[in-house]
Amino acid sequence: MTKYVYKFTEGDKDMKDLLGGKGANLAEMTNIGLPVPPGFTITTEACRHYLDSGTMPAGLDEEIEADLVELEKTMGRELGSPDDPLLVSVRSGARFSMPGMMETVLNIGLNDESVVGLAIQGGDERFAWDSYRRLIQMFGKTVLDIDGELFEAAIDELKAEKGVTDDLDLDAADFRRLVERFKEIVADQTGKPFPTDPREQMTLAVKAVFESWNAPRAVLYRRQERIPADLGTAVNVCSMVFGNLGMDSGTGVAFTRDPATGRSGVYGDYLRNAQGEDVVAGIRNTVPLTDLEDIDAHSYEELMGIMDKLENHYRDLCDIEFTIERGKLWMLQTRVGKRTAAAAFRIADQLVDQGMITLEEAVQRVTGDQLAQLMFPRFDEKVAVGDDFHLLGRGMNASPGAAVGKAVFDSYTAVKWSRSGEKVILCRRETNPDDLEGMIAAEGILTSRGGKTSHAAVVARGMGKTCVCGAEEIDIDTKNRRMTAPGGEVVEEGDVISIDGASGRVHLGEVPVVDSPVVRYFEGEIDPASDQADDLVRSVDRMMHYVDAARRMYVRANADTPEDAARARRMGAQGIGLCRTEHMFLGDRRQSVERLILADTPQEQQESLEALLPLQRQDFNGILGAMDGLPVTVRLLDPPLHEFLPDITELSVRVAVAEARGESHENDLRVLQAVHKLHEQNPMLGLRGVRLGLVVPGLFTMQVRAIAQAAVDRIREGGRPRPEIMIPLVGTVQELEIIRDDALRVLREVGEENGMELDFPVGTMIELPRAALTAGQIAENAAFFSFGTNDLTQTVWGFSRDDVEASFFSAYLEKGVFGVSPFESLDVDGVGRLIRIAVEEGRVARPGIKLGVCGEHGGDPASVHFFHEVGLDYVSCSPFRVPVARLEAGRAAGRAH
Amino acid sequence: MTKYVYKFTEGDKDMKDLLGGKGANLAEMTNIGLPVPPGFTITTEACRHYLDSGTMPAGLDEEIEADLVELEKTMGRELGSPDDPLLVSVRSGARFSMPGMMETVLNIGLNDESVVGLAIQGGDERFAWDSYRRLIQMFGKTVLDIDGELFEAAIDELKAEKGVTDDLDLDAADFRRLVERFKEIVADQTGKPFPTDPREQMTLAVKAVFESWNAPRAVLYRRQERIPADLGTAVNVCSMVFGNLGMDSGTGVAFTRDPATGRSGVYGDYLRNAQGEDVVAGIRNTVPLTDLEDIDAHSYEELMGIMDKLENHYRDLCDIEFTIERGKLWMLQTRVGKRTAAAAFRIADQLVDQGMITLEEAVQRVTGDQLAQLMFPRFDEKVAVGDDFHLLGRGMNASPGAAVGKAVFDSYTAVKWSRSGEKVILCRRETNPDDLEGMIAAEGILTSRGGKTSHAAVVARGMGKTCVCGAEEIDIDTKNRRMTAPGGEVVEEGDVISIDGASGRVHLGEVPVVDSPVVRYFEGEIDPASDQADDLVRSVDRMMHYVDAARRMYVRANADTPEDAARARRMGAQGIGLCRTEHMFLGDRRQSVERLILADTPQEQQESLEALLPLQRQDFNGILGAMDGLPVTVRLLDPPLHEFLPDITELSVRVAVAEARGESHENDLRVLQAVHKLHEQNPMLGLRGVRLGLVVPGLFTMQVRAIAQAAVDRIREGGRPRPEIMIPLVGTVQELEIIRDDALRVLREVGEENGMELDFPVGTMIELPRAALTAGQIAENAAFFSFGTNDLTQTVWGFSRDDVEASFFSAYLEKGVFGVSPFESLDVDGVGRLIRIAVEEGRVARPGIKLGVCGEHGGDPASVHFFHEVGLDYVSCSPFRVPVARLEAGRAAGRAH
Repeated sequence: MTKYVYKFTEGDKDMKDLLGGKGANLAEMTNIGLPVPPGFTITTEACRHYLDSGTMPAGLDEEIEADLVELEKTMGRELGSPDDPLLVSVRSGARFSMPGMMETVLNIGLNDESVVGLAIQGGDERFAWDSYRRLIQMFGKTVLDIDGELFEAAIDELKAEKGVTDDLDLDAADFRRLVERFKEIVADQTGKPFPTDPREQMTLAVKAVFESWNAPRAVLYRRQERIPADLGTAVNVCSMVFGNLGMDSGTGVAFTRDPATGRSGVYGDYLRNAQGEDVVAGIRNTVPLTDLEDIDAHSYEELMGIMDKLENHYRDLCDIEFTIERGKLWMLQTRVGKRTAAAAFRIADQLVDQGMITLEEAVQRVTGDQLAQLMFPRFDEKVAVGDDFHLLGRGMNASPGAAVGKAVFDSYTAVKWSRSGEKVILCRRETNPDDLEGMIAAEGILTSRGGKTSHAAVVARGMGKTCVCGAEEIDIDTKNRRMTAPGGEVVEEGDVISIDGASGRVHLGEVPVVDSPVVRYFEGEIDPASDQADDLVRSVDRMMHYVDAARRMYVRANADTPEDAARARRMGAQGIGLCRTEHMFLGDRRQSVERLILADTPQEQQESLEALLPLQRQDFNGILGAMDGLPVTVRLLDPPLHEFLPDITELSVRVAVAEARGESHENDLRVLQAVHKLHEQNPMLGLRGVRLGLVVPGLFTMQVRAIAQAAVDRIREGGRPRPEIMIPLVGTVQELEIIRDDALRVLREVGEENGMELDFPVGTMIELPRAALTAGQIAENAAFFSFGTNDLTQTVWGFSRDDVEASFFSAYLEKGVFGVSPFESLDVDGVGRLIRIAVEEGRVARPGIKLGVCGEHGGDPASVHFFHEVGLDYVSCSPFRVPVARLEAGRAAGRAH
Repeated sequence: MTKYVYKFTEGDKDMKDLLGGKGANLAEMTNIGLPVPPGFTITTEACRHYLDSGTMPAGLDEEIEADLVELEKTMGRELGSPDDPLLVSVRSGARFSMPGMMETVLNIGLNDESVVGLAIQGGDERFAWDSYRRLIQMFGKTVLDIDGELFEAAIDELKAEKGVTDDLDLDAADFRRLVERFKEIVADQTGKPFPTDPREQMTLAVKAVFESWNAPRAVLYRRQERIPADLGTAVNVCSMVFGNLGMDSGTGVAFTRDPATGRSGVYGDYLRNAQGEDVVAGIRNTVPLTDLEDIDAHSYEELMGIMDKLENHYRDLCDIEFTIERGKLWMLQTRVGKRTAAAAFRIADQLVDQGMITLEEAVQRVTGDQLAQLMFPRFDEKVAVGDDFHLLGRGMNASPGAAVGKAVFDSYTAVKWSRSGEKVILCRRETNPDDLEGMIAAEGILTSRGGKTSHAAVVARGMGKTCVCGAEEIDIDTKNRRMTAPGGEVVEEGDVISIDGASGRVHLGEVPVVDSPVVRYFEGEIDPASDQADDLVRSVDRMMHYVDAARRMYVRANADTPEDAARARRMGAQGIGLCRTEHMFLGDRRQSVERLILADTPQEQQESLEALLPLQRQDFNGILGAMDGLPVTVRLLDPPLHEFLPDITELSVRVAVAEARGESHENDLRVLQAVHKLHEQNPMLGLRGVRLGLVVPGLFTMQVRAIAQAAVDRIREGGRPRPEIMIPLVGTVQELEIIRDDALRVLREVGEENGMELDFPVGTMIELPRAALTAGQIAENAAFFSFGTNDLTQTVWGFSRDDVEASFFSAYLEKGVFGVSPFESLDVDGVGRLIRIAVEEGRVARPGIKLGVCGEHGGDPASVHFFHEVGLDYVSCSPFRVPVARLEAGRAAGRAH
């Protein structure tokens, strides 16, 4: 027989799949001897059975009954007893935390009889009837699906009748009346009386928790967070303890160290004579946890001991919820606590020093996302807290960064002002797709509504734009173009504000922005051994040393200029994985490029290419110099030629207007003809990449010649150039074969002209599905593959990043079609599957082929792990993301064994 | 030890892999007792060894030596003998025919001594010295790589010296002088004397044949024809027989029945006193084979017997080459002969009647391409041969069809005239990418240069446009805009001509075009049992009956209107696989659609959708009626909304010009704003398909409601509507899930409103790589998959058909990057691999899922075989291609077992 119920004494922290996170940790605490109110957990398996079949699994009822009896025995109380009743809570607890998504019912076991017992035992009649009405209210809403407003209205009605405004002004008799009224509501709404049998209450509550797994908001949340839909939730049945039984009772939350800074020392809040939900609701003011020492020294000391034990046991920062019932401390929950980026590094560092974890474990406690957050420019803390920069309020830190600009209240103004050079912050109650242009134009986005998965939040994160959302205390009045802070300050359109995406703070005025010390460390401006470096920089330095030693993958940078290359090298890049050559056709080369495109004869075409050759030779010389001794992968020209000509619509308008006015426009007309000829409906899917190389004679060979000559120059200058020639947009081996043969011929020729052997690898991008699907054939002609995950994502999904991010990505994120944009984090099921195929079949065809990635995913933490797992040799990303990639490559290597 | 040499007596016709096509058939003829000059074949394996290692395989020389000795014994002649020398030919012969690509050397064995013996034995000194100079010339060119012009020049020089113009005017002494001169050329060019040792001649010739496998033209040909590069060629060494030993000698080619019509009776040409290459060169006039009866009755009778035997043996039409040497008949080659489309059907039909093959075999002898050719409109034969339609000349039948129009000589004129409503034929010496617009504008294309793989030919075939190419006898003078026929007729620009893509004929004037009788049969206008039907129609009818019984796959049609649906049904379609709904948003609905797109409020949007609903309901009613009882797969709206608005450039120009002129343009301006908002750089990769359904509320549900209501109407009218709802452009299961749930809800609602159960399947297109790669997930929410191979090809290759067919496909076909456009015939390695994945994983996830294809590949013969092989349930194609698909589906089923 399957066991569906585990007493807290039977589980442990590693049983999260079966018991959920909360249940597993309750069991763990019980087993290490902490004071947890006794109880048991009904497994996720029972939930899955119920959801699949619509019925409770056979034997479950009996198991629950047996465990209840045992619980009654342990507690010395009985469910429904008119003398000394046992009350229990029924709480959901899934494998992955789904905050606010699932159901909870407290005070199960109360009825007209047991409420009397509770009053006697608690010595507080008001408390007992308040508890009873809370049960009916909570049960009515979550189990019986009754509109919560009905209960609220009844309370308001009663208060009005009594002429009071505060719940605290209601007495036992009032709550007793409310219980009657609530029972009437239940009978009215459901056609049945409120169930007074405690066992029936429990069964119904358990089913309600099970069913809450499939509530629309939970389904949407899981879709957004990519939590599997078939896990189900566990249910924790726990004997109730009460923090609201007088001033010797209370409830609190605490962290075993400061989750904001990571510095040691307990940290938390305590609220006397209250239940847990009162803390969360923020109705009354909490006191700092340290005050508990004065209030209840014994409990405080016990709590300190427990927190110490927990941190040592979990070997990490823990957060906890506890209740003191008449001087007796109870632990209600614990888990490894969330923390800020800086705290994560500091804590990991400290735990190593304390001998609690190894350095290998420490790097698993920090993430590339956290490191990236530490690298954002930030508000100068010393200044930000000063009087000049009044704190208007706080919201959620939805997308990091520090943004300063004039407050604007609609998208239209944001676009208009930004076009005229103003920096603006778009302030809206909430955003929707119509605000997209404004969001693009703005430095940052502030909303007063919506959480971290609201439209504003997801779109801003997608754009890498600073966002503070859900700043509910600030009243944003878009109609009158102003907002009002809780302190009464009014911000009019055009007033400068500063928003902090890291802390969620909103300031009046322009807070100065400073470079992150972590970036200054990477740039070599701060020596981690010096007193310029604080403990954060030293923590980062320590982790980086470790991951650089641990990682198997190399990290390169995408860089197109000597300056970028030099910066990337300072950031730790071990070469260039993608050097685009587009910019070498711009600027002062425009004329030659235009001649090339408009050429009437092969002769003219040839001449314009020859004019470009020496210029590109110089370009390559600079880049090879900056990366001397390290590989530099140069991508031959990729974009369609018409990108070097004016836009067809603009030019057409110019010509037509000139014609209408009878003005001369001959040159424009000539260019327009060429633009028409080259115009493509879908340039992304047009004549570009290797196709250009095959259709425009001499274009690619000119580039290869420039690379070869630059290498020769570098060798003569004593350098060690290591160019690698990369052919873009290959779809079939025949394309590669032809261009590669040309490239090798040119290398040979330039080598012979200069008496050198130029033995540079020629490889290809894998950025089309077909290239991945025929990688075995392609590998036979390629010294290396570099996965172009941007284009690969575009073709695998069939959407162009430029076109669709604005038009439907926000809708897709909101509806949970995406968990995260596939341009941000690699789509493992689709794009990743093709990469896996190409890696496997490429290696079979050419053992030792070098494999890397040069799409922007090369700097995305989750994607780096994937690339490690499939066995790439290197990742390449923007210079600024190089440290992130180094860290994640090291973490991936550590995790693998 | 590997055996590298097979005597003709040792091989057979099934050994083509090892002996090549020619060698295998020579062996077969030898073994069935036909008079083949003795010889042997060096295997493709020897060639592969040589090409891989650069050396002849060990033992090969000894084997050749032994076989030569045996050959000498058989023939009673010795290589190099001054009395009675043996001469041999050395010819290539690969697995697949590569006409004109590979090398041949005749008369091996001649030198200064043996030429004397040949003169004695042949009794003809001139013949002997002519043979010798031919050897040096052929050997010099093909084995020693000497420029053939040098030899030609020497001949011309000698003729000039003698004051003659014809080879026939040269005598034995002249050829003797030429031999000396040719030997000098060889010594000059190679620094070595011409090799006079017959064995050395042979070894060098064999190596030259081997090496010709990798000659650039052969590499290119194989790339174009997708012949594997590693097969290698066999070499046939055959004792020489001479058709040029007097008037009792000769050479000929023949077919065992008429390859043009398929009617029985021998057919061929004979040339007295000549060698095979003289026939091919067309220097002298051949006589009909039947004349041989008078010239040499004995040989004629023997030949008739042999041809009868061959046809019975190969059970098919054979073509042969033969030589008569002084009254003795020798067979030099045979193979199953090429034939026209009509001949293919007639021959297969006749062979069944003769009991030679089964009907099952017969359908393997005809192809869908041939059937498609028979379905093209054609010139009325009765009229076309009349005087009114003067035959100007002939070229190659590069792309089928019959085209009539005014001759134009450049692309510009073609476009200009066609825009003003003229039908034009573009006439060029050859075409290049600059002619593309003209080719698109023209009815047909005529060139005087280039073969079937020339730019004109490949592009025209790609466009499905009639093309006659390489009509060398017609002098096309583009500069003076006229062309001159060999008969002296001059065609000026604007004169009407007619070109026949089936026969390659070019006529002056407008030849009347008639419908193909095969189409009239399919349309039900010709009853195959009546005397209206000729034997071709009856053959087709017989094959169609067979394949309809044999095939496993259903054949549906892509049709969007009741008229198309009815036609498709007549053509044998078993339902509609793709009913596009785009046209339902055009015409008189434009206004509602514009309102929908420009709507400022959800209310307005809703109203415009409601206006469309009854109209679409009527549309669907018509289509469901025409396909009553058969499935109709309706694709919900696919194209981006801006396709229903004016083009951005045109509209911008209109607005700008109006502004410049101070004219009013308010409505245009309003529309322009919407166009700007909806504008996408790459609409193919933009907001379309399921994305529209998710972003435009109510759009897809309106369509589903219209379908459901139409079905209700049909049921009320007594019909059996079978709509299937298809969601386009799905990339991830989440998209499908949301839209499918909406669709099922609407079906339920409409069903309930009308007291019916509307249980119509909801499925998806698989037209994005990601859909195929995650087909297992998607199948869980889809009743069927329909592969959209057009879009799938576009995304797998990363090119848009519209943009690239013109810009680089021609270059790709010419360079052999493609064998055939992947839009024409399914790319098995790339697109096909994804389809295979999706089929396998879709069936695992949902056994019994219905699988079909609705891209244009559904009517392409090779692709149909692929679809059968991977196990699709149906293909869908344009109504006109339905018979082709039926035939190929039947052939595929037959071939499979």
